Amino acid sequence: MTMFDIPGFRITDGSSFKLKDHPTRLEKQIPKDDLKDCVKEDAAHIGKFQETLYAENNRSLLLIFQAMDAGGKDSCIARVLGDVNPQGCRVTSFKTPTTLELEHDFLWRHAAAAPATGMFGVHNRSHYEEVLVVKVHPEYLVGQHLPGIRSGKDADNAFWDARYESIRSFEEHLARQGTTIMKFYLHMGRDAQKERFLERIEEREKNWKFNMGDLKERAHWDAYMDAYEAAIRNTATPAAPWYVVPADKQWETRAIVCRAVREQLEAMDPRIPELSAEATKDLPAALEALKAD
Amino acid sequence: MTMFDIPGFRITDGSSFKLKDHPTRLEKQIPKDDLKDCVKEDAAHIGKFQETLYAENNRSLLLIFQAMDAGGKDSCIARVLGDVNPQGCRVTSFKTPTTLELEHDFLWRHAAAAPATGMFGVHNRSHYEEVLVVKVHPEYLVGQHLPGIRSGKDADNAFWDARYESIRSFEEHLARQGTTIMKFYLHMGRDAQKERFLERIEEREKNWKFNMGDLKERAHWDAYMDAYEAAIRNTATPAAPWYVVPADKQWETRAIVCRAVREQLEAMDPRIPELSAEATKDLPAALEALKAD
Repeated sequence: MTMFDIPGFRITDGSSFKLKDHPTRLEKQIPKDDLKDCVKEDAAHIGKFQETLYAENNRSLLLIFQAMDAGGKDSCIARVLGDVNPQGCRVTSFKTPTTLELEHDFLWRHAAAAPATGMFGVHNRSHYEEVLVVKVHPEYLVGQHLPGIRSGKDADNAFWDARYESIRSFEEHLARQGTTIMKFYLHMGRDAQKERFLERIEEREKNWKFNMGDLKERAHWDAYMDAYEAAIRNTATPAAPWYVVPADKQWETRAIVCRAVREQLEAMDPRIPELSAEATKDLPAALEALKAD
Repeated sequence: MTMFDIPGFRITDGSSFKLKDHPTRLEKQIPKDDLKDCVKEDAAHIGKFQETLYAENNRSLLLIFQAMDAGGKDSCIARVLGDVNPQGCRVTSFKTPTTLELEHDFLWRHAAAAPATGMFGVHNRSHYEEVLVVKVHPEYLVGQHLPGIRSGKDADNAFWDARYESIRSFEEHLARQGTTIMKFYLHMGRDAQKERFLERIEEREKNWKFNMGDLKERAHWDAYMDAYEAAIRNTATPAAPWYVVPADKQWETRAIVCRAVREQLEAMDPRIPELSAEATKDLPAALEALKAD
Protein backbone atom coordinates (compact mmCIF):
# COMPACT_ATOMS: atom_id res chain seq x y z
CA MET A 1 0.00 0.00 0.00
CA THR A 2 1.47 3.33 -1.01
CA MET A 3 0.30 5.98 1.39
CA PHE A 4 2.66 8.68 0.19
CA ASP A 5 4.13 9.69 -3.10
CA ILE A 6 7.74 9.89 -1.93
CA PRO A 7 9.11 11.42 -5.17
CA GLY A 8 6.80 14.36 -4.46
CA PHE A 9 8.91 15.23 -1.41
CA ARG A 10 12.25 14.64 -3.11
CA ILE A 11 14.30 17.43 -4.71
CA THR A 12 17.05 16.22 -7.04
CA ASP A 13 17.41 19.51 -8.89
CA GLY A 14 17.26 22.58 -6.69
CA SER A 15 17.45 25.22 -9.41
CA SER A 16 13.80 26.27 -9.13
CA PHE A 17 13.27 25.29 -5.50
CA LYS A 18 11.04 27.52 -3.40
CA LEU A 19 10.24 26.70 0.20
CA LYS A 20 6.78 28.25 -0.08
CA ASP A 21 5.80 25.57 -2.61
CA HIS A 22 6.17 23.00 0.16
CA PRO A 23 3.49 22.62 2.84
CA THR A 24 4.28 22.08 6.52
CA ARG A 25 1.46 19.56 6.84
CA LEU A 26 -0.20 17.06 4.54
CA GLU A 27 -3.13 18.39 2.55
CA LYS A 28 -5.14 15.22 3.03
CA GLN A 29 -5.22 14.28 6.70
CA ILE A 30 -4.43 10.65 7.55
CA PRO A 31 -5.63 9.15 10.84
CA LYS A 32 -2.80 9.01 13.39
CA ASP A 33 -3.27 5.28 13.93
CA ASP A 34 -2.74 4.63 10.23
CA LEU A 35 0.45 6.67 10.32
CA LYS A 36 1.66 4.73 13.35
CA ASP A 37 0.94 1.41 11.64
CA CYS A 38 2.82 2.62 8.62
CA VAL A 39 5.85 3.60 10.72
CA LYS A 40 5.81 0.26 12.51
CA GLU A 41 5.73 -1.73 9.28
CA ASP A 42 8.36 0.38 7.54
CA ALA A 43 10.68 0.34 10.56
CA ALA A 44 10.60 -3.47 10.52
CA HIS A 45 11.57 -3.48 6.84
CA ILE A 46 14.32 -0.94 7.44
CA GLY A 47 15.69 -3.17 10.21
CA LYS A 48 15.79 -6.20 7.89
CA PHE A 49 17.42 -4.27 5.07
CA GLN A 50 20.04 -2.89 7.42
CA GLU A 51 20.99 -6.40 8.50
CA THR A 52 21.55 -7.39 4.88
CA LEU A 53 23.43 -4.19 4.05
CA TYR A 54 25.72 -4.95 6.99
CA ALA A 55 26.36 -8.48 5.74
CA GLU A 56 26.86 -7.24 2.16
CA ASN A 57 29.45 -4.79 3.48
CA ASN A 58 30.27 -2.71 0.42
CA ARG A 59 27.79 0.14 0.48
CA SER A 60 26.45 2.48 3.14
CA LEU A 61 23.54 4.81 3.79
CA LEU A 62 23.90 8.34 5.13
CA LEU A 63 20.79 10.01 6.53
CA ILE A 64 21.10 13.71 7.25
CA PHE A 65 18.51 15.48 9.40
CA GLN A 66 18.07 19.22 9.51
CA ALA A 67 15.29 21.26 11.08
CA MET A 68 14.60 24.31 13.16
CA ASP A 69 14.72 23.74 16.95
CA ALA A 70 11.89 21.47 18.13
CA GLY A 71 11.40 20.32 14.53
CA GLY A 72 11.22 16.69 15.67
CA LYS A 73 14.60 15.39 14.47
CA ASP A 74 15.35 13.26 17.53
CA SER A 75 12.02 11.49 17.68
CA CYS A 76 12.00 10.97 13.92
CA ILE A 77 15.47 9.40 14.03
CA ALA A 78 14.33 7.15 16.88
CA ARG A 79 11.45 5.84 14.74
CA VAL A 80 13.48 5.31 11.57
CA LEU A 81 15.99 3.30 13.60
CA GLY A 82 13.32 1.64 15.74
CA ASP A 83 14.19 -1.87 14.53
CA VAL A 84 17.77 -1.29 13.46
CA ASN A 85 20.54 -3.12 15.29
CA PRO A 86 22.63 -0.35 16.90
CA GLN A 87 25.71 -2.32 15.92
CA GLY A 88 24.96 -1.51 12.29
CA CYS A 89 24.36 2.18 12.69
CA ARG A 90 26.07 5.20 14.13
CA VAL A 91 24.22 8.38 15.02
CA THR A 92 26.29 11.54 15.32
CA SER A 93 24.76 14.66 16.84
CA PHE A 94 26.74 17.69 15.82
CA LYS A 95 27.02 20.34 18.50
CA THR A 96 28.73 23.74 18.51
CA PRO A 97 32.18 23.12 16.99
CA THR A 98 35.06 22.71 19.44
CA THR A 99 38.23 24.81 19.34
CA LEU A 100 39.99 21.92 17.61
CA GLU A 101 37.24 21.54 15.02
CA LEU A 102 37.32 25.26 14.28
CA GLU A 103 40.98 24.89 13.39
CA HIS A 104 40.06 22.53 10.55
CA ASP A 105 38.15 22.94 7.32
CA PHE A 106 34.40 23.03 7.81
CA LEU A 107 33.84 19.52 6.43
CA TRP A 108 36.51 17.88 8.60
CA ARG A 109 34.40 16.57 11.43
CA HIS A 110 31.59 15.58 9.08
CA ALA A 111 33.86 13.57 6.79
CA ALA A 112 35.23 11.79 9.86
CA ALA A 113 31.67 10.77 10.80
CA ALA A 114 30.76 9.39 7.36
CA PRO A 115 29.43 5.83 7.62
CA ALA A 116 31.74 2.83 7.22
CA THR A 117 30.78 0.23 4.60
CA GLY A 118 27.76 -1.81 5.56
CA MET A 119 26.63 0.84 8.02
CA PHE A 120 23.88 3.39 8.42
CA GLY A 121 25.27 6.79 9.34
CA VAL A 122 22.75 9.21 10.79
CA HIS A 123 23.72 12.84 11.21
CA ASN A 124 21.56 14.85 13.57
CA ARG A 125 22.46 18.26 12.20
CA SER A 126 25.34 18.22 9.75
CA HIS A 127 27.71 20.25 7.60
CA TYR A 128 24.60 22.17 6.52
CA GLU A 129 24.81 24.14 9.74
CA GLU A 130 27.80 25.81 8.07
CA VAL A 131 25.43 27.43 5.54
CA LEU A 132 22.49 27.77 7.95
CA VAL A 133 23.30 28.97 11.47
CA VAL A 134 26.62 30.36 10.25
CA LYS A 135 24.95 32.19 7.37
CA VAL A 136 22.36 33.67 9.74
CA HIS A 137 25.21 34.65 12.11
CA PRO A 138 28.15 35.31 9.78
CA GLU A 139 30.10 36.74 12.73
CA TYR A 140 30.72 33.07 13.71
CA LEU A 141 33.06 32.88 10.72
CA VAL A 142 35.59 35.00 12.54
CA GLY A 143 36.26 32.07 14.88
CA GLN A 144 36.93 29.77 11.92
CA HIS A 145 40.41 31.11 11.09
CA LEU A 146 39.60 31.74 7.43
CA PRO A 147 41.87 33.71 5.12
CA GLY A 148 40.35 37.10 4.28
CA ILE A 149 37.54 36.90 6.85
CA ARG A 150 37.99 39.52 9.56
CA SER A 151 34.29 40.13 10.13
CA GLY A 152 31.02 38.55 9.09
CA LYS A 153 30.66 41.24 6.44
CA ASP A 154 33.59 39.78 4.54
CA ALA A 155 31.48 36.76 3.58
CA ASP A 156 29.93 37.73 0.24
CA ASN A 157 27.83 35.71 -2.18
CA ALA A 158 30.92 34.19 -3.73
CA PHE A 159 31.93 32.95 -0.27
CA TRP A 160 28.66 31.10 0.24
CA ASP A 161 28.66 29.80 -3.34
CA ALA A 162 32.07 28.31 -2.65
CA ARG A 163 30.71 26.57 0.46
CA TYR A 164 27.84 25.10 -1.53
CA GLU A 165 30.32 23.89 -4.11
CA SER A 166 32.46 22.24 -1.42
CA ILE A 167 29.38 20.54 -0.04
CA ARG A 168 28.25 19.29 -3.46
CA SER A 169 31.71 17.92 -4.20
CA PHE A 170 31.97 16.24 -0.81
CA GLU A 171 28.62 14.55 -1.22
CA GLU A 172 29.33 13.48 -4.80
CA HIS A 173 32.59 11.99 -3.61
CA LEU A 174 30.82 9.96 -0.92
CA ALA A 175 28.22 8.83 -3.46
CA ARG A 176 30.97 7.62 -5.81
CA GLN A 177 32.37 5.57 -2.91
CA GLY A 178 29.09 3.70 -2.51
CA THR A 179 27.33 5.89 0.04
CA THR A 180 23.68 6.59 -0.65
CA ILE A 181 22.78 10.01 0.76
CA MET A 182 19.34 11.15 1.85
CA LYS A 183 18.95 14.64 3.29
CA PHE A 184 15.81 15.42 5.25
CA TYR A 185 14.63 18.90 5.98
CA LEU A 186 11.78 18.65 8.50
CA HIS A 187 9.71 21.59 7.39
CA MET A 188 7.85 22.97 10.40
CA GLY A 189 5.84 26.20 10.44
CA ARG A 190 6.56 29.02 12.84
CA ASP A 191 3.31 28.42 14.75
CA ALA A 192 4.09 24.76 15.31
CA GLN A 193 7.42 25.72 16.84
CA LYS A 194 5.67 28.12 19.17
CA GLU A 195 3.35 25.34 20.38
CA ARG A 196 6.23 22.98 21.01
CA PHE A 197 8.23 25.57 22.92
CA LEU A 198 5.16 26.33 25.02
CA GLU A 199 4.84 22.63 25.86
CA ARG A 200 8.44 22.54 27.02
CA ILE A 201 7.79 25.43 29.37
CA GLU A 202 4.37 24.41 30.59
CA GLU A 203 4.96 20.68 31.08
CA ARG A 204 7.32 20.27 33.98
CA GLU A 205 8.86 16.98 32.79
CA LYS A 206 9.75 18.64 29.48
CA ASN A 207 11.44 21.64 31.13
CA TRP A 208 14.91 20.15 30.80
CA LYS A 209 14.59 20.36 27.03
CA PHE A 210 13.94 24.09 27.09
CA ASN A 211 16.78 26.37 26.23
CA MET A 212 16.62 30.16 26.30
CA GLY A 213 19.00 30.21 23.34
CA ASP A 214 16.39 28.43 21.18
CA LEU A 215 14.00 31.30 21.78
CA LYS A 216 16.65 33.80 20.67
CA GLU A 217 17.19 31.89 17.43
CA ARG A 218 13.45 31.94 16.77
CA ALA A 219 13.75 35.70 16.31
CA HIS A 220 15.80 34.97 13.17
CA TRP A 221 13.11 32.76 11.63
CA ASP A 222 12.95 34.50 8.26
CA ALA A 223 16.70 34.55 7.87
CA TYR A 224 16.76 30.81 8.59
CA MET A 225 14.06 30.16 5.99
CA ASP A 226 16.10 32.09 3.43
CA ALA A 227 19.18 30.11 4.36
CA TYR A 228 17.34 26.77 4.07
CA GLU A 229 15.91 27.75 0.70
CA ALA A 230 19.31 28.77 -0.61
CA ALA A 231 20.95 25.63 0.80
CA ILE A 232 18.43 23.28 -0.79
CA ARG A 233 18.46 25.24 -4.03
CA ASN A 234 22.23 24.91 -4.25
CA THR A 235 22.76 21.37 -2.98
CA ALA A 236 19.82 19.25 -4.13
CA THR A 237 21.42 16.92 -6.68
CA PRO A 238 20.69 13.45 -8.04
CA ALA A 239 23.62 12.14 -5.98
CA ALA A 240 22.36 13.74 -2.77
CA PRO A 241 18.69 14.69 -2.93
CA TRP A 242 16.84 16.70 -0.31
CA TYR A 243 13.51 15.50 1.06
CA VAL A 244 11.37 18.40 2.24
CA VAL A 245 9.01 16.77 4.72
CA PRO A 246 5.99 18.41 6.37
CA ALA A 247 6.78 18.67 10.08
CA ASP A 248 3.86 20.37 11.82
CA LYS A 249 2.47 16.94 12.71
CA GLN A 250 5.10 14.60 14.11
CA TRP A 251 3.48 11.36 12.94
CA GLU A 252 3.24 12.66 9.38
CA THR A 253 6.95 13.43 9.45
CA ARG A 254 7.88 10.06 10.90
CA ALA A 255 5.71 8.13 8.45
CA ILE A 256 7.02 9.96 5.39
CA VAL A 257 10.67 9.67 6.41
CA CYS A 258 10.32 5.97 7.25
CA ARG A 259 8.64 5.30 3.93
CA ALA A 260 11.30 7.24 2.01
CA VAL A 261 14.11 5.28 3.72
CA ARG A 262 12.34 1.98 3.15
CA GLU A 263 11.82 2.72 -0.55
CA GLN A 264 15.45 3.75 -0.91
CA LEU A 265 16.63 0.51 0.66
CA GLU A 266 14.29 -1.48 -1.58
CA ALA A 267 15.88 0.22 -4.57
CA MET A 268 19.38 -0.49 -3.23
CA ASP A 269 18.38 -4.15 -2.86
CA PRO A 270 21.26 -5.34 -0.64
CA ARG A 271 22.19 -9.03 -0.77
CA ILE A 272 23.82 -11.52 1.57
CA PRO A 273 27.28 -11.95 0.05
CA GLU A 274 28.39 -15.13 -1.63
CA LEU A 275 31.53 -16.65 -0.21
CA SER A 276 34.48 -16.11 -2.58
CA ALA A 277 35.34 -19.00 -4.88
CA GLU A 278 38.57 -19.47 -2.97
CA ALA A 279 36.91 -19.53 0.44
CA THR A 280 34.25 -21.92 -0.88
CA LYS A 281 37.01 -24.29 -1.98
CA ASP A 282 38.20 -24.43 1.64
CA LEU A 283 34.82 -25.44 3.07
CA PRO A 284 34.99 -29.23 2.54
CA ALA A 285 38.39 -29.46 4.22
CA ALA A 286 37.19 -27.24 7.07
CA LEU A 287 34.12 -29.44 7.49
CA GLU A 288 36.21 -32.58 7.64
CA ALA A 289 38.69 -31.09 10.10
CA LEU A 290 35.89 -29.92 12.38
CA LYS A 291 34.03 -33.21 12.31
CA ALA A 292 37.22 -35.06 13.25
CA ASP A 293 37.87 -32.58 16.10
CA MET B 1 10.47 -12.17 39.30
CA THR B 2 14.13 -12.99 39.75
CA MET B 3 15.05 -15.76 37.39
CA PHE B 4 18.79 -15.48 37.89
CA ASP B 5 21.05 -14.67 40.76
CA ILE B 6 23.15 -12.08 38.92
CA PRO B 7 25.74 -11.65 41.71
CA GLY B 8 26.55 -15.34 41.18
CA PHE B 9 27.92 -14.50 37.73
CA ARG B 10 29.77 -11.37 38.84
CA ILE B 11 33.46 -11.35 39.79
CA THR B 12 34.57 -8.24 41.67
CA ASP B 13 37.71 -9.81 43.12
CA GLY B 14 39.60 -12.03 40.72
CA SER B 15 42.27 -13.26 43.12
CA SER B 16 40.88 -16.78 43.41
CA PHE B 17 39.14 -16.92 40.03
CA LYS B 18 39.17 -20.23 38.18
CA LEU B 19 37.39 -20.68 34.87
CA LYS B 20 36.57 -24.31 35.64
CA ASP B 21 34.38 -23.20 38.56
CA HIS B 22 32.08 -21.56 36.00
CA PRO B 23 29.71 -23.66 33.89
CA THR B 24 29.08 -23.05 30.20
CA ARG B 25 25.35 -23.71 30.62
CA LEU B 26 22.84 -23.27 33.41
CA GLU B 27 22.51 -26.20 35.76
CA LYS B 28 18.75 -25.89 35.93
CA GLN B 29 17.28 -25.68 32.45
CA ILE B 30 14.77 -22.90 31.81
CA PRO B 31 12.27 -23.21 28.94
CA LYS B 32 13.39 -21.14 25.94
CA ASP B 33 10.08 -19.27 25.83
CA ASP B 34 10.57 -18.11 29.41
CA LEU B 35 14.04 -16.89 28.55
CA LYS B 36 12.69 -15.01 25.53
CA ASP B 37 9.99 -13.38 27.65
CA CYS B 38 12.60 -12.38 30.15
CA VAL B 39 14.79 -10.80 27.43
CA LYS B 40 11.83 -8.93 26.00
CA GLU B 41 10.83 -7.49 29.35
CA ASP B 42 14.35 -6.57 30.38
CA ALA B 43 15.16 -4.99 27.00
CA ALA B 44 12.15 -2.71 27.39
CA HIS B 45 13.38 -1.61 30.83
CA ILE B 46 16.89 -1.08 29.51
CA GLY B 47 15.46 1.13 26.75
CA LYS B 48 13.57 3.27 29.26
CA PHE B 49 16.56 3.62 31.57
CA GLN B 50 18.77 4.60 28.65
CA GLU B 51 16.40 7.42 27.73
CA THR B 52 16.62 8.78 31.27
CA LEU B 53 20.39 8.34 31.46
CA TYR B 54 20.63 10.36 28.23
CA ALA B 55 18.48 13.15 29.66
CA GLU B 56 20.39 13.10 32.95
CA ASN B 57 23.62 13.49 30.97
CA ASN B 58 26.29 13.10 33.63
CA ARG B 59 27.04 9.40 33.78
CA SER B 60 27.57 6.68 31.22
CA LEU B 61 27.55 2.91 30.89
CA LEU B 62 30.28 0.89 29.19
CA LEU B 63 29.48 -2.70 28.25
CA ILE B 64 32.42 -4.80 27.16
CA PHE B 65 31.87 -8.11 25.36
CA GLN B 66 34.52 -10.77 25.00
CA ALA B 67 34.16 -14.35 23.80
CA MET B 68 35.74 -16.94 21.60
CA ASP B 69 34.68 -16.85 17.93
CA ALA B 70 31.00 -17.75 17.50
CA GLY B 71 30.47 -17.11 21.20
CA GLY B 72 27.33 -15.11 20.46
CA LYS B 73 28.55 -11.55 21.13
CA ASP B 74 26.78 -9.93 18.18
CA SER B 75 23.37 -11.46 18.80
CA CYS B 76 23.64 -10.83 22.53
CA ILE B 77 24.47 -7.15 21.92
CA ALA B 78 21.51 -6.90 19.54
CA ARG B 79 19.15 -8.16 22.29
CA VAL B 80 20.53 -5.96 25.07
CA LEU B 81 20.10 -2.95 22.80
CA GLY B 82 16.82 -4.19 21.32
CA ASP B 83 14.81 -1.25 22.66
CA VAL B 84 17.58 1.30 23.02
CA ASN B 85 17.48 4.44 20.89
CA PRO B 86 20.59 4.21 18.68
CA GLN B 87 21.08 7.93 19.25
CA GLY B 88 21.92 7.16 22.88
CA CYS B 89 24.38 4.38 22.26
CA ARG B 90 27.49 3.71 20.29
CA VAL B 91 28.70 0.23 19.45
CA THR B 92 32.35 -0.12 18.51
CA SER B 93 33.60 -3.37 17.00
CA PHE B 94 37.34 -3.60 17.38
CA LYS B 95 39.08 -5.28 14.47
CA THR B 96 42.75 -6.01 13.85
CA PRO B 97 44.61 -2.78 14.76
CA THR B 98 45.56 -0.50 11.87
CA THR B 99 49.09 0.70 11.20
CA LEU B 100 48.20 4.01 12.83
CA GLU B 101 46.74 2.33 15.91
CA LEU B 102 49.84 0.15 16.28
CA GLU B 103 51.89 3.34 16.52
CA HIS B 104 50.02 4.33 19.69
CA ASP B 105 49.78 2.86 23.17
CA PHE B 106 47.54 -0.18 23.36
CA LEU B 107 44.69 1.67 25.12
CA TRP B 108 44.63 4.58 22.66
CA ARG B 109 41.81 3.47 20.38
CA HIS B 110 39.79 2.10 23.29
CA ALA B 111 40.00 5.32 25.29
CA ALA B 112 38.85 7.21 22.20
CA ALA B 113 35.77 4.98 22.02
CA ALA B 114 34.78 5.42 25.68
CA PRO B 115 31.16 6.56 25.98
CA ALA B 116 30.26 10.25 26.23
CA THR B 117 28.13 11.33 29.19
CA GLY B 118 24.56 10.14 28.97
CA MET B 119 25.52 7.38 26.55
CA PHE B 120 25.79 3.62 26.41
CA GLY B 121 29.12 2.55 24.97
CA VAL B 122 29.25 -1.04 23.78
CA HIS B 123 32.57 -2.56 22.87
CA ASN B 124 32.44 -5.70 20.77
CA ARG B 125 35.90 -6.98 21.67
CA SER B 126 38.02 -4.49 23.53
CA HIS B 127 41.42 -3.69 25.04
CA TYR B 128 41.26 -7.21 26.48
CA GLU B 129 42.34 -8.55 23.09
CA GLU B 130 45.72 -7.08 24.06
CA VAL B 131 46.03 -9.71 26.81
CA LEU B 132 44.12 -12.44 24.96
CA VAL B 133 44.89 -12.86 21.25
CA VAL B 134 48.18 -11.01 21.73
CA LYS B 135 49.15 -13.21 24.68
CA VAL B 136 48.33 -16.34 22.69
CA HIS B 137 50.36 -14.93 19.77
CA PRO B 138 53.06 -12.83 21.46
CA GLU B 139 54.79 -12.43 18.08
CA TYR B 140 52.12 -9.77 17.33
CA LEU B 141 53.89 -7.56 19.86
CA VAL B 142 56.74 -7.05 17.41
CA GLY B 143 54.42 -4.91 15.26
CA GLN B 144 53.56 -2.70 18.24
CA HIS B 145 56.84 -0.73 18.30
CA LEU B 146 57.50 -1.44 21.98
CA PRO B 147 60.82 -0.66 23.66
CA GLY B 148 62.71 -3.85 24.45
CA ILE B 149 60.42 -6.17 22.46
CA ARG B 150 62.24 -7.68 19.51
CA SER B 151 60.43 -11.01 19.55
CA GLY B 152 57.42 -12.49 21.31
CA LYS B 153 59.80 -14.19 23.74
CA ASP B 154 60.75 -10.82 25.19
CA ALA B 155 57.30 -10.55 26.80
CA ASP B 156 57.75 -12.08 30.24
CA ASN B 157 55.36 -12.26 33.19
CA ALA B 158 56.30 -8.75 34.28
CA PHE B 159 55.30 -7.49 30.82
CA TRP B 160 51.80 -8.96 31.08
CA ASP B 161 51.43 -7.86 34.71
CA ALA B 162 52.18 -4.32 33.55
CA ARG B 163 49.46 -4.61 30.90
CA TYR B 164 46.95 -5.76 33.52
CA GLU B 165 47.95 -2.83 35.69
CA SER B 166 47.44 -0.38 32.81
CA ILE B 167 44.01 -1.88 32.18
CA ARG B 168 43.00 -1.68 35.84
CA SER B 169 44.11 1.94 36.07
CA PHE B 170 42.34 2.89 32.85
CA GLU B 171 39.09 1.33 34.02
CA GLU B 172 39.34 2.86 37.47
CA HIS B 173 39.88 6.25 35.87
CA LEU B 174 36.77 5.85 33.73
CA ALA B 175 34.79 4.74 36.79
CA ARG B 176 35.91 7.85 38.71
CA GLN B 177 34.61 9.96 35.79
CA GLY B 178 31.12 8.49 36.15
CA THR B 179 31.32 5.54 33.77
CA THR B 180 29.82 2.30 35.06
CA ILE B 181 31.71 -0.61 33.53
CA MET B 182 30.35 -4.13 32.98
CA LYS B 183 32.59 -6.70 31.34
CA PHE B 184 30.97 -9.81 29.93
CA TYR B 185 32.85 -12.95 29.11
CA LEU B 186 30.50 -15.23 27.19
CA HIS B 187 31.77 -18.57 28.39
CA MET B 188 31.18 -21.15 25.67
CA GLY B 189 32.50 -24.69 25.69
CA ARG B 190 34.71 -26.10 22.97
CA ASP B 191 31.96 -28.45 21.74
CA ALA B 192 29.45 -25.63 21.36
CA GLN B 193 31.90 -23.74 19.18
CA LYS B 194 32.31 -26.82 17.01
CA GLU B 195 28.53 -27.03 16.51
CA ARG B 196 28.29 -23.36 15.56
CA PHE B 197 31.16 -23.55 13.10
CA LEU B 198 29.54 -26.62 11.53
CA GLU B 199 26.31 -24.65 11.10
CA ARG B 200 28.17 -21.88 9.34
CA ILE B 201 29.61 -24.38 6.88
CA GLU B 202 26.53 -26.54 6.40
CA GLU B 203 23.89 -23.80 6.15
CA ARG B 204 24.46 -21.97 2.91
CA GLU B 205 23.03 -18.64 4.10
CA LYS B 206 25.47 -18.66 7.02
CA ASN B 207 28.50 -19.36 4.83
CA TRP B 208 29.46 -15.68 4.65
CA LYS B 209 30.14 -15.73 8.39
CA PHE B 210 32.64 -18.55 8.10
CA ASN B 211 36.26 -17.65 8.23
CA MET B 212 39.11 -20.12 7.86
CA GLY B 213 41.11 -18.01 10.32
CA ASP B 214 38.56 -18.78 13.07
CA LEU B 215 39.28 -22.48 12.66
CA LYS B 216 43.00 -21.85 13.03
CA GLU B 217 42.42 -19.95 16.28
CA ARG B 218 40.37 -22.85 17.60
CA ALA B 219 43.55 -24.92 17.65
CA HIS B 220 44.79 -22.58 20.41
CA TRP B 221 41.75 -23.18 22.60
CA ASP B 222 43.63 -24.09 25.79
CA ALA B 223 45.98 -21.14 25.48
CA TYR B 224 42.96 -18.85 25.09
CA MET B 225 41.31 -20.32 28.18
CA ASP B 226 44.51 -19.72 30.15
CA ALA B 227 44.63 -16.15 28.87
CA TYR B 228 40.98 -15.52 29.79
CA GLU B 229 41.48 -16.93 33.26
CA ALA B 230 44.56 -14.78 33.84
CA ALA B 231 42.83 -11.69 32.44
CA ILE B 232 39.79 -12.07 34.65
CA ARG B 233 41.91 -12.98 37.67
CA ASN B 234 43.94 -9.78 37.22
CA THR B 235 41.27 -7.30 36.19
CA ALA B 236 38.07 -8.19 38.05
CA THR B 237 37.66 -5.29 40.47
CA PRO B 238 34.77 -3.59 42.24
CA ALA B 239 35.11 -0.67 39.79
CA ALA B 240 35.02 -2.93 36.75
CA PRO B 241 33.61 -6.38 37.48
CA TRP B 242 33.59 -9.29 35.08
CA TYR B 243 30.44 -11.29 34.45
CA VAL B 244 31.21 -14.85 33.43
CA VAL B 245 28.07 -15.91 31.58
CA PRO B 246 27.26 -19.43 30.36
CA ALA B 247 27.24 -19.32 26.56
CA ASP B 248 26.53 -22.79 25.23
CA LYS B 249 22.84 -21.84 24.91
CA GLN B 250 22.33 -18.46 23.28
CA TRP B 251 19.04 -17.64 25.01
CA GLU B 252 20.56 -18.32 28.41
CA THR B 253 23.36 -15.89 27.60
CA ARG B 254 21.02 -13.21 26.32
CA ALA B 255 18.67 -13.50 29.29
CA ILE B 256 21.44 -13.33 31.88
CA VAL B 257 23.20 -10.40 30.24
CA CYS B 258 19.96 -8.45 29.82
CA ARG B 259 19.02 -9.06 33.43
CA ALA B 260 22.47 -8.00 34.65
CA VAL B 261 22.31 -4.76 32.64
CA ARG B 262 18.78 -4.04 33.80
CA GLU B 263 19.71 -4.59 37.46
CA GLN B 264 22.76 -2.36 37.06
CA LEU B 265 20.63 0.44 35.60
CA GLU B 266 18.08 0.04 38.39
CA ALA B 267 20.91 0.50 40.88
CA MET B 268 22.20 3.56 39.00
CA ASP B 269 18.68 5.00 39.13
CA PRO B 270 19.06 7.78 36.54
CA ARG B 271 16.74 10.80 36.83
CA ILE B 272 15.34 13.40 34.47
CA PRO B 273 17.35 16.52 35.38
CA GLU B 274 15.84 19.49 37.11
CA LEU B 275 16.26 22.78 35.29
CA SER B 276 18.88 24.94 37.04
CA ALA B 277 17.57 27.62 39.37
CA GLU B 278 18.78 30.27 36.97
CA ALA B 279 17.11 28.72 33.94
CA THR B 280 13.90 28.22 35.92
CA LYS B 281 13.89 31.93 36.71
CA ASP B 282 13.83 32.64 32.97
CA LEU B 283 10.77 30.49 32.28
CA PRO B 284 7.99 33.01 33.09
CA ALA B 285 9.55 35.68 30.85
CA ALA B 286 10.05 33.12 28.09
CA LEU B 287 6.43 32.03 28.41
CA GLU B 288 5.18 35.58 28.17
CA ALA B 289 7.37 36.39 25.18
CA LEU B 290 6.21 33.27 23.35
CA LYS B 291 2.55 33.87 24.03
CA ALA B 292 2.82 37.41 22.69
CA ASP B 293 4.63 36.14 19.58
